[in-house]
Amino acid sequence: MSTGAELHAACEALSPLLGTWRGKGEGHYPTIEDFDYLEELTFSHVGKPFLAMSQRTRDSRNDAPLHAEVGYLRPQPNRGIEMVLTQPTGVVEIHNGSITERSDGLVVDLRTERVEGTRTAKPITEVRRRLEVTGDTLVSEMWMAAMGQPLTHHLRAELTRA
Amino acid sequence: MSTGAELHAACEALSPLLGTWRGKGEGHYPTIEDFDYLEELTFSHVGKPFLAMSQRTRDSRNDAPLHAEVGYLRPQPNRGIEMVLTQPTGVVEIHNGSITERSDGLVVDLRTERVEGTRTAKPITEVRRRLEVTGDTLVSEMWMAAMGQPLTHHLRAELTRA
Repeated sequence: MSTGAELHAACEALSPLLGTWRGKGEGHYPTIEDFDYLEELTFSHVGKPFLAMSQRTRDSRNDAPLHAEVGYLRPQPNRGIEMVLTQPTGVVEIHNGSITERSDGLVVDLRTERVEGTRTAKPITEVRRRLEVTGDTLVSEMWMAAMGQPLTHHLRAELTRA
Repeated sequence: MSTGAELHAACEALSPLLGTWRGKGEGHYPTIEDFDYLEELTFSHVGKPFLAMSQRTRDSRNDAPLHAEVGYLRPQPNRGIEMVLTQPTGVVEIHNGSITERSDGLVVDLRTERVEGTRTAKPITEVRRRLEVTGDTLVSEMWMAAMGQPLTHHLRAELTRA
């Protein structure tokens, strides 16, 4: 997914995301113990009007793989954005949101229009995601409504451009 | 997604899929002109009870990127299987199906329980997918109900293990 293609004009506002980001994250939720993790997050393009997104996390103690997710960001007119995402847990997310450009980065705010899962997936009701780039720092946050809980802050990772 | 991890026991039946596959495909549908393409398809694992799937196609004439999709295969008891998949077109697919083991490969038959899309995605009603491995050959087929058409054969690619 890394080609010499020129970035599609529709993706210009998302260009601060492009590349590979690495760092540490922390997770918490009312139904589980707090945890932390190492994260690698990549945004790439092929010259078409979307970015591909791929994320993996590992256990900071023993390097074992934890979570993963893959998907696509689809910028829309007037700083709108759609995102589709899937996870090995059997969950798919369809997001709608907005892009806010800043002099040294951007903020992408996303809210699920729909979260669906396979028969054996744990049911999730709603997800909010936020990506904030400031120079070479990316803060990724996620809120989730699941397990009978309302939309609750679940994950925060602070990553550095590789 | 390629680690030295041992394949999870739940994924044993899917082991003939593992690796990278390349070859040619042909597409047709009542509403469009026939087309052909080059495909690269990869199945990988991290030692957990799922395989990651990543596919990209290119134009056979000028090598330009055409389609892409990413997702996860989740084997279930009694040769059952779930698959979640997403595409840059804004579509997500949730499949349920079966694994049939053969002496020299396998067949994976998948049918969507749900196909959903972003606001701007073209609506798709149903998808059927079939993966057949015979030795070092993988035949991938896809049927789609969309654009007012019933479930209709859309894609067939014949790939060789890289």
